Amino acid sequence: VDPALGQFRPPTPSRFGRFAQVQLFRAEAPDELVATRPASLPESRLGGVLVGIKRMVFGPPLPTSAVSQERMVKPVALAVLGSDLLSSVAYGPEAMLAVLVLGGSAALGLSLPIAAALLVLMIALGASYRQTIRAYPSGAGSYVVASDNLGRYAGLVAAAGLLSDYVLTVAVSVASGVDALTSAMPRFAPHGAVIGLGVILALLAGNLRGIRQAGAIFAAPTYAFLVGIFALILVGFVQAGQRGFQPITAPPIHATEALTLFLVLRAFASGATSMTGIEAVSNALPAFRPPEWRSGLTTLTWMVSLMVAILAGLVTLIHLDGIVPRPGETVLSQLGHEVFGAGMLYAYLQAATMLVLFLAANTAFNDFPRLLSVMAHDDYAPRLFLRVGDRLALTNGMVTLTVLASILFLTFRGRTEALIPLYAVGVFLAFTLSQTGMVAHWWRAHGSHWRKSVVVNGAGAALTAVVTVIVAVTKFSDGSWVTLVAIPLTVGVLVRIHSHYDIVNTALSVREPSQNLSVAPFPSDEEEHEETPEQVHHLIVVPVSRLHLASLRALAYAASFATPTFAVHIAPSEEGAEQFREQWTQWGNHIRLETIVSPYRAVVPPLTHYLEALHYQRPDLTITVVLYELVPAHHWEQLLHSPVASRLRKALRPLPDLVITSVPFHLSRTSTRRAHSGLGPAG
Amino acid sequence: VDPALGQFRPPTPSRFGRFAQVQLFRAEAPDELVATRPASLPESRLGGVLVGIKRMVFGPPLPTSAVSQERMVKPVALAVLGSDLLSSVAYGPEAMLAVLVLGGSAALGLSLPIAAALLVLMIALGASYRQTIRAYPSGAGSYVVASDNLGRYAGLVAAAGLLSDYVLTVAVSVASGVDALTSAMPRFAPHGAVIGLGVILALLAGNLRGIRQAGAIFAAPTYAFLVGIFALILVGFVQAGQRGFQPITAPPIHATEALTLFLVLRAFASGATSMTGIEAVSNALPAFRPPEWRSGLTTLTWMVSLMVAILAGLVTLIHLDGIVPRPGETVLSQLGHEVFGAGMLYAYLQAATMLVLFLAANTAFNDFPRLLSVMAHDDYAPRLFLRVGDRLALTNGMVTLTVLASILFLTFRGRTEALIPLYAVGVFLAFTLSQTGMVAHWWRAHGSHWRKSVVVNGAGAALTAVVTVIVAVTKFSDGSWVTLVAIPLTVGVLVRIHSHYDIVNTALSVREPSQNLSVAPFPSDEEEHEETPEQVHHLIVVPVSRLHLASLRALAYAASFATPTFAVHIAPSEEGAEQFREQWTQWGNHIRLETIVSPYRAVVPPLTHYLEALHYQRPDLTITVVLYELVPAHHWEQLLHSPVASRLRKALRPLPDLVITSVPFHLSRTSTRRAHSGLGPAG
Repeated sequence: VDPALGQFRPPTPSRFGRFAQVQLFRAEAPDELVATRPASLPESRLGGVLVGIKRMVFGPPLPTSAVSQERMVKPVALAVLGSDLLSSVAYGPEAMLAVLVLGGSAALGLSLPIAAALLVLMIALGASYRQTIRAYPSGAGSYVVASDNLGRYAGLVAAAGLLSDYVLTVAVSVASGVDALTSAMPRFAPHGAVIGLGVILALLAGNLRGIRQAGAIFAAPTYAFLVGIFALILVGFVQAGQRGFQPITAPPIHATEALTLFLVLRAFASGATSMTGIEAVSNALPAFRPPEWRSGLTTLTWMVSLMVAILAGLVTLIHLDGIVPRPGETVLSQLGHEVFGAGMLYAYLQAATMLVLFLAANTAFNDFPRLLSVMAHDDYAPRLFLRVGDRLALTNGMVTLTVLASILFLTFRGRTEALIPLYAVGVFLAFTLSQTGMVAHWWRAHGSHWRKSVVVNGAGAALTAVVTVIVAVTKFSDGSWVTLVAIPLTVGVLVRIHSHYDIVNTALSVREPSQNLSVAPFPSDEEEHEETPEQVHHLIVVPVSRLHLASLRALAYAASFATPTFAVHIAPSEEGAEQFREQWTQWGNHIRLETIVSPYRAVVPPLTHYLEALHYQRPDLTITVVLYELVPAHHWEQLLHSPVASRLRKALRPLPDLVITSVPFHLSRTSTRRAHSGLGPAG
Repeated sequence: VDPALGQFRPPTPSRFGRFAQVQLFRAEAPDELVATRPASLPESRLGGVLVGIKRMVFGPPLPTSAVSQERMVKPVALAVLGSDLLSSVAYGPEAMLAVLVLGGSAALGLSLPIAAALLVLMIALGASYRQTIRAYPSGAGSYVVASDNLGRYAGLVAAAGLLSDYVLTVAVSVASGVDALTSAMPRFAPHGAVIGLGVILALLAGNLRGIRQAGAIFAAPTYAFLVGIFALILVGFVQAGQRGFQPITAPPIHATEALTLFLVLRAFASGATSMTGIEAVSNALPAFRPPEWRSGLTTLTWMVSLMVAILAGLVTLIHLDGIVPRPGETVLSQLGHEVFGAGMLYAYLQAATMLVLFLAANTAFNDFPRLLSVMAHDDYAPRLFLRVGDRLALTNGMVTLTVLASILFLTFRGRTEALIPLYAVGVFLAFTLSQTGMVAHWWRAHGSHWRKSVVVNGAGAALTAVVTVIVAVTKFSDGSWVTLVAIPLTVGVLVRIHSHYDIVNTALSVREPSQNLSVAPFPSDEEEHEETPEQVHHLIVVPVSRLHLASLRALAYAASFATPTFAVHIAPSEEGAEQFREQWTQWGNHIRLETIVSPYRAVVPPLTHYLEALHYQRPDLTITVVLYELVPAHHWEQLLHSPVASRLRKALRPLPDLVITSVPFHLSRTSTRRAHSGLGPAG
């Protein structure tokens, strides 16, 4: 037998050859072929159609060589990475006011001091993150910083917090974007949930196509929003100046709750959602033009400064114009109406707000899969999150994010105010761990100015820790308990996954890699071990239910190896066994036959037990079970045939040292030919 | 290598041995084992639990030897086989009146002549079926009679008609039984659909346990019903006699339709549903005590006589008592109230009616699977309907019947009057074909009295044909179109199934059965053919993604056969290929390695195309693909591993002359041991 391996390169095209001589492979070197694009298409017709549809929606596949890391200039980075943080002003101040309003008109006056506290927090966080960028000039998220400096559990908690944060970023940003739309066009309000779901799916589709993160088109909404919001603040202050900065009195509101410290803290916790997204720059440093850390620092400073200006301006203006949260229209939309009237300027503000919020949701589609792939690389997440799709996107992570965000969005029917309480816990937990990690980092490193750095990050850590506790406690019954339950659960799953991969890596590791074929000892225990071909002693078993071409082919295949082989027949009764034995003798009795009478008509369990008993009798043998399987031309026809082969395959999988061989017998090709020649159903 | 086949009998118990030394097999003869009950239990824990639950519900499995054909004495046969026919009086007359009532009070007077016509039809049918019993003394249903005498298509149409009839018998009888209940206890009326579904499922459960058809317990409801109904008629007539047989005038009813011939025919068609079940005796002759045909004749005569008496008595009494169908209470219940008042006698009548109707539904659970198994034996139905379950019941047929009947029942929300129009078409179609078949039979046989027999069956055929047309036409828009569409569709499916099995049988048939191993020529075309071991020329291909113990074991397994073997690696890029090749050389380069660079990162399609190209290059080789598969300890862990092996197996199935071998690598056993010895996740 000479398989003539040297001759078959490049192989002739086969199925595709029916239509055109498509080159499936080209020879690159001896023993090396390169698959062309047609070779990546599935064989089956249904598979081909599905791939065709996929291509239409997501575009043609990209070769691995198309991976390129585009570097962002600072203004683009500010827009792309800042969208998450800057867009928070659309819901953060509103969430704060919505809590204060419960305390009545008097409580609303506290919005200015609370906002001041938030600004202090933001500046402290900005300073902290500047330190992180200095310490990790090549970029590092909370997961890496916490793992590096505080150990794997801290890293996993930070990761779980961030994962929940990304899911909530999508849900909250989309919900808030839809609010911006329905504030301007109330007739869409009843369909908010559907619109939001559509946006999430559109974001998924766009990201699966592999939209590049950087680029002018992604910078546009953020700058449009900045223009709009600053115009709003400017015009608003001019108008307020014209009336001598006299606050307009808001309509009197009856307090439904006492104005306690708890209420104030709750309002502060709600407002803290404005901080989400501040960590984006330190995560994304590799995407900056070199020197990365310097560009990053500048961008972060700009981002925080803009945010401080906007927050301060907006909250003051809301106070001056006497605006109070009410259902059906966002505070920002009310302010827009108040300042711009109902014209084009107002419409522009709402459109820009909506777009920047959707862009903020889009950032999670980059961050969530990237974090999961980093974790999968560390064996903390399923490896499927490492898989790069046709379009070079981390498909599985994106789909997972979409599913989780959609579930969350629909569970809360897209109501921003219901989602907000879940939001801040995860982020601030990650912030705290990351900042604490930085403290540990400086402490250990003892570099120049380490004392100053410890103080800055220590302050950040202390502040964020306090905020985490405030958010967790004051929002507990509103929904933060969901996140507080989800995070430890997630950490548990991550640890479980890691321990599984640990086990697998140990089990699969090749000991003595260079000489294993010659010296590997024959292990006495049951451990899975490396074997040499000489150590494999075969026994082939062929279960046979009837004597026909398919079973005879399986027997011929088994016998052709010239190793000990026998056949097994399961009969429902003594008579059945006797009858089969007669047929067997008539056929020629070429192979030894064992019969098992199964009076309860079971087939799979007795065979499994029999093979297992065989293995324990002779554990030195590798038992190969040769199964014949009828493969019909159409899938539905499978229903007309016994599923025993596939059930047997499933039942035999857990048995040790048992190899399962399928010898398919195709019913299609024969049949058509015979039917045409008059021997088929008509004959 | 000596597999020592002679020593391993009886094999020592393995897994079960942990708990107790359970004997799984005992040796019956050389080369023959008999599996004990524990050997029929699945290996897996989940499987064991499921089987345990199944055993609790359905009882322990019965050995094949427990099959026994109980023979029924005539009184039991009358009750068991007659329940379907006799219970029809619960809905037949009511269905007729429900149509007549549309023609107003005047039309109701026509109930007596229509009933008379129905009686004539019934007597004619009874006479016809007596002939069938004489001609087929060992029993034959419409399917057999029609196939035998009119060809396979007539047989299939009859079979399709009967199948639809059995499904409707369950739906209509259960619906009507629930009506009997809710008439007496109206508070259950809103839950009618749920109760009905519960009854259908209870019937399934009972039949899956393998309730024997014959037996006194099954005779009881029929006799109880007969006692009740004759008491009703007797007391009713006595009461009517006391007032001089003066009909009570029904409340005046406004006609909603003109009293046309069409309306009368529609009423007749509805009343004809009383005829369903008359064929039971001729189907079930083998279940009678010998001489079967004589017992059958007597039973049939009794059945028809009882039915004629009841129908005549009931319709007359309904007329005399001026009872009119109305929603919420059946006619029979109204009559019961009228005659017996609201006491125990009335309750007894309703209970007996309900039970006999459920018993009638139960008969379909015997007939439907039996017909399907006969058809499966003739290759007209999927072979899975031949499978005898643990409890010797035709499980698959029963489950199919339950699903279809439940769908029908729920679609029509258990309303008897909505189901009735679908009912009669199938039965009368089967009647017509069966009677026509009998005419053909007598005509061909030309036995003694053949002219008389032709006349009797001819009359039956003509009558039933007319009724079929009447039912089909007058009930078309009410629902008989459903059946008229379902029957040809079913026949189409049956024919398609048959042609598939025909193809399979031809394809699998062994030519030259006694000498095939020596003389079978090597076929030049692509047909699947019988091979001898000497004709099999091997080429083994081992796809390898990484070098670890699992892939090395697959390579060792493949190499141990000492046939041409090579490995294939799919790399996403040139660099990846180069890197793997280096590892391969380092490992020792024991086996030739092919690499395929797949720039689009696809794995399964390029490999499939490659193997197909290989096959077309060298069609004389049998290519064996050896795949290693990681088998984790828990099912959920499978999610943490690549599904490539199983996807590859699926994609390779359609390829010709390709054998797929799975070498499993178990992660569980190794891992636990290593984890305990400190090398696991903690290490």
